[in-house]
Amino acid sequence: MATRESRVLEIIETARAKRAKFRDDRINMAHGAGGKATSRLVEGLLQPAFGMDLDDAALVGDIAITTDAFVVKPLRFPGGSIGELAVNGTVNDLAVSGARPLALTVSLILEEGLEADVLKAEVEALATAAERAGVRIVGGDTKVVERGHADGLYITTTGIGRRDPRVSFSPPRPGDRVLLSGPIGAHGMAIMLARGEFELDADIVSDTRPLWPAVDAMLGPGVRVMRDATRGGVASVLNELARSAKVAMLVREKNVPVAPAVAGACELLGIDPMYVANEGVFVAIVAPDMDVPGFADIGEVKTEPPGMVLVETSFGGKRVMDELVGDPLPRIC
Amino acid sequence: MATRESRVLEIIETARAKRAKFRDDRINMAHGAGGKATSRLVEGLLQPAFGMDLDDAALVGDIAITTDAFVVKPLRFPGGSIGELAVNGTVNDLAVSGARPLALTVSLILEEGLEADVLKAEVEALATAAERAGVRIVGGDTKVVERGHADGLYITTTGIGRRDPRVSFSPPRPGDRVLLSGPIGAHGMAIMLARGEFELDADIVSDTRPLWPAVDAMLGPGVRVMRDATRGGVASVLNELARSAKVAMLVREKNVPVAPAVAGACELLGIDPMYVANEGVFVAIVAPDMDVPGFADIGEVKTEPPGMVLVETSFGGKRVMDELVGDPLPRIC
Repeated sequence: MATRESRVLEIIETARAKRAKFRDDRINMAHGAGGKATSRLVEGLLQPAFGMDLDDAALVGDIAITTDAFVVKPLRFPGGSIGELAVNGTVNDLAVSGARPLALTVSLILEEGLEADVLKAEVEALATAAERAGVRIVGGDTKVVERGHADGLYITTTGIGRRDPRVSFSPPRPGDRVLLSGPIGAHGMAIMLARGEFELDADIVSDTRPLWPAVDAMLGPGVRVMRDATRGGVASVLNELARSAKVAMLVREKNVPVAPAVAGACELLGIDPMYVANEGVFVAIVAPDMDVPGFADIGEVKTEPPGMVLVETSFGGKRVMDELVGDPLPRIC
Repeated sequence: MATRESRVLEIIETARAKRAKFRDDRINMAHGAGGKATSRLVEGLLQPAFGMDLDDAALVGDIAITTDAFVVKPLRFPGGSIGELAVNGTVNDLAVSGARPLALTVSLILEEGLEADVLKAEVEALATAAERAGVRIVGGDTKVVERGHADGLYITTTGIGRRDPRVSFSPPRPGDRVLLSGPIGAHGMAIMLARGEFELDADIVSDTRPLWPAVDAMLGPGVRVMRDATRGGVASVLNELARSAKVAMLVREKNVPVAPAVAGACELLGIDPMYVANEGVFVAIVAPDMDVPGFADIGEVKTEPPGMVLVETSFGGKRVMDELVGDPLPRIC
C-alpha cells in the first residue's frame, strides 16, 4: 500500500493543475468539451478579460443569472430534444446555485432551409419544458444564418432566479460527504447512440429533467455546494471543486450508481461513465452528519492531495481521476 | 391631391397588416431580417407558444431582461466588431425600455479552427464595450461546433437592468411627435461595404454605441415609447409601433437625418436608408409639447389610417412606408 500511495502522490505532483493558461493557436472541439481545454479557455482567457467567474450562476442583488448555449446533435434524441435541454440545462444551473428559477430568455440561431416543422417542434419543446420547470419565457431573439452555417438551430437560454433564503454555501471541507442525486451517464450515452456512429443499440434515454424539486427538498445549512454534472461529467465537477477549494476528493467507484444499460455501453465503447454528461444529476457536497434520502453517497472530501480527485476502484486500488483531455463526446448539449 | 390620397388609401386597404401568421415551410434569410417574415415568425409562432411579447425587454419585478443573438458578417467592420455590437445591442434594448443596464451574460458559439487571435480580439471588444457601457459581465458559456458549422463565432448576450423610476410609458397617441436621436443608415451600410460585394468605396463607419446616456438625458413624463432602430431600420420600428398602437405615423422625409456618404451609397445601391439597420440610433415618440435638444423631429402620430406609416416625400407627395419584405441586408447584427 505504501508504494502504491507514494506512486499516486508522484503522479499527482506531475499532474497537479496549475492556474490554466490559454496558449492555443486555434479553437478545437476539446475547447467545448468541459475538460482541460475548456478550463484553459475559460480560466485563461474569458475570466481574466471579464473579471469574473464564468462557471456558476452569478448574483446581481438577490437575482441569480446564468446563460447556456445549446448545440446538441442530433436535435432530437431518446428522452428529449434541444428545446427541452435548453430549458432544463439553464434552470438547473440556477437550481444548483440555490436559486428558484423564475424566468428565461430564448435566443435562436436558425439555419436557412430549416424545416418549419422542426422549428415548431422545438418551440413547443421549449414551451412545455418551461411550463414543467415552472418558469416563464419572457424574452427572445431570432437570427438566421445561411445554409451550411449552423446545424438546423442553436439555442441560447438565459435564466434568472431568486436566491433561496435557506442557502448558506461554503467551501467543501475535509470530512464532508460527496453525494450524487441519481445514476450517471445516461444523457451522453443516449446522444452518442442516437448519432448511430457505433454499431450498438441499447435502451438508453437522456435523463434531462428540471432539478429544482430535488434541490428544494434538500436545501439547508448542511449543503456546502451543488453542481449539475453536465459536460465533462461527475469527474469534471469534482476536479473543479477540488481545485477551487484546495481539497482532495475520494470517490468510491462501487458506490457510484450507473444503470446497467449505460454501464454496458460505456464498457463496450471504452468510456468511463464518470466523464459522461448528465442533464438531470447533480453533485452535492454536504456536512458529514447530513442525511439525504435517495442520494448516493459516493465519497468524501479529504485534505491531501489538495486539488486532486482520487478514485478507490472496486478492486481496492486508487487512481487519479484527472480532468478530461480531448473531446470524446462532442456536442452533447 | 384628392386622387393621390384615395390611391394611397386603396393601397393601404390592400396592404394593411393582419395579425401575422407563420405558414412558411422552411426558414429563409428574410426570417432574420426584421421585416414581415420576422413578424410572421415571432408573432405567428414564438409569441403564441411562449405566451409573451418577444420584442421588448421584459420585466420581472423591477428587473428588465433582454437577449440578442449576434451573427454579423464580417466579424470586424469599420467602426466596430461583433464583440462590441453584442454589448451595445443588448444594453441598448434595455436603455430604450427605460432600464439602466446593470449586467450582461455572454454565450459564445465558436467554430472549430477559429484563430485564437480573432477570439482574443472579440473577448477584448466585449470587455471594453461593457466597461464603456457601465455594465458588468457576470456569466457566460462557451460551446464549440465543427469546422463549417458556424462563421468563426456567434455571440448571444443577455442583459439585465433596473427600470428607471422616471419611466411612464404609454401608447403613442395622435398629435405626438416622432423623434430620431441621430442620423440613420450608417451601421447597415458600413457592413454592406465591408463585405466588398459592391464596387463601392465610401467612408462610412458603424454608429454602434451605448444609448443609455442619451436615454438618461431625455427620460421624463412626456416620453411615450422608445425603440432602437436596428434590423429593418426606422421603417420597421415605426410600422411596429403604428400597428400595436393602432395609430398612423406621418414621416417628413426631408427631416430625416442621413449623413451624405450614407445617403450617396444608399442611392447608388437603390436602398432606402429608412430600412437600413442602425446600432446607435433610437426613435422616441414624445408628447407634442416636449422639447428634446439634439434630436431630429421627423414627423407625428396621426389617427388615420391606423396601423400604417406614411412618408411625405421631399416633392410633397405621400407614399406608404410598409414593412420590409425579403432581406436586402442579411446578417448585419
